[in-house]
Amino acid sequence: MPLPTPRDRSTRVADTLAMLTTPAIDVWVATASSDGSPYLVPVSLAWVDERAVIAVDATSVTARNLVASRKARLAVGPSRDVVMVDAELERAVDVGEDVALGEGYVAQADWDPRRSQGYQFLVLRPVRLQAWREVNEIPGRTLMRGGRWLEQPRPRGEDDER
Amino acid sequence: MPLPTPRDRSTRVADTLAMLTTPAIDVWVATASSDGSPYLVPVSLAWVDERAVIAVDATSVTARNLVASRKARLAVGPSRDVVMVDAELERAVDVGEDVALGEGYVAQADWDPRRSQGYQFLVLRPVRLQAWREVNEIPGRTLMRGGRWLEQPRPRGEDDER
Repeated sequence: MPLPTPRDRSTRVADTLAMLTTPAIDVWVATASSDGSPYLVPVSLAWVDERAVIAVDATSVTARNLVASRKARLAVGPSRDVVMVDAELERAVDVGEDVALGEGYVAQADWDPRRSQGYQFLVLRPVRLQAWREVNEIPGRTLMRGGRWLEQPRPRGEDDER
Repeated sequence: MPLPTPRDRSTRVADTLAMLTTPAIDVWVATASSDGSPYLVPVSLAWVDERAVIAVDATSVTARNLVASRKARLAVGPSRDVVMVDAELERAVDVGEDVALGEGYVAQADWDPRRSQGYQFLVLRPVRLQAWREVNEIPGRTLMRGGRWLEQPRPRGEDDER
């Protein structure tokens, strides 16, 4: 079966924002411990003010790794229609503390953590964002770099690491 | 909407093996660099002789991280019907070198890396394996520990880290 035609840049950006704001969607969150052990869990995603927001127990591996290293790599969508985000922890806040953040989270997620004892919102700032479906969308897949949406497609050959 | 009834242990094991051997299925591979940066990519999976086998460029971040740390965390399936595997690198072999391994890989994956210059098969030995759908399947989700399939469900409360 031939691959679908690669999407152009503006279509990818629109599809990416639609994906990130999908109600009740999950995000794969990869983190690493200080001794280099990888961790990965799926959790509910909210995309609030250009930040990826997750809610986790403050004692979870994900929270501990993120608070220590500040770094996560996120994946949203199925493996052949994926948005990959390298992100930095901007802040961690107890779920009851920031009313606007809590409202933004529950407007998208399919559960409400605001009364969950010990839970935190982790607010993740995207640094690099890539979106692709099949192998023919690897060129041009980088849509954000250094925390800014790119205005031009990247030259072919960059960011082809896989 | 109420959650579906949690599956019993034997159903989970059967579903897990069916998931891992699905033709043309992808696996999320989380690894970490020596400086603690998480990495995550989706790649094709083959489940060969109780090992997860992936094919990647030897210079890729995933290959470099795995050869250095020997550790990966894998996810197969959608986020609400997931098989999570903590795995160790058993061996890395050039794609043309091990005929039986190559045949096992292409029998499941939807591409053939055996002529791809610089590609390796990474053979990952599962150490801990968990499977769950919704939150009501968190108890009993650990099906393998220390590289062995468990014969008894774990007592409630263990492995509830999320």
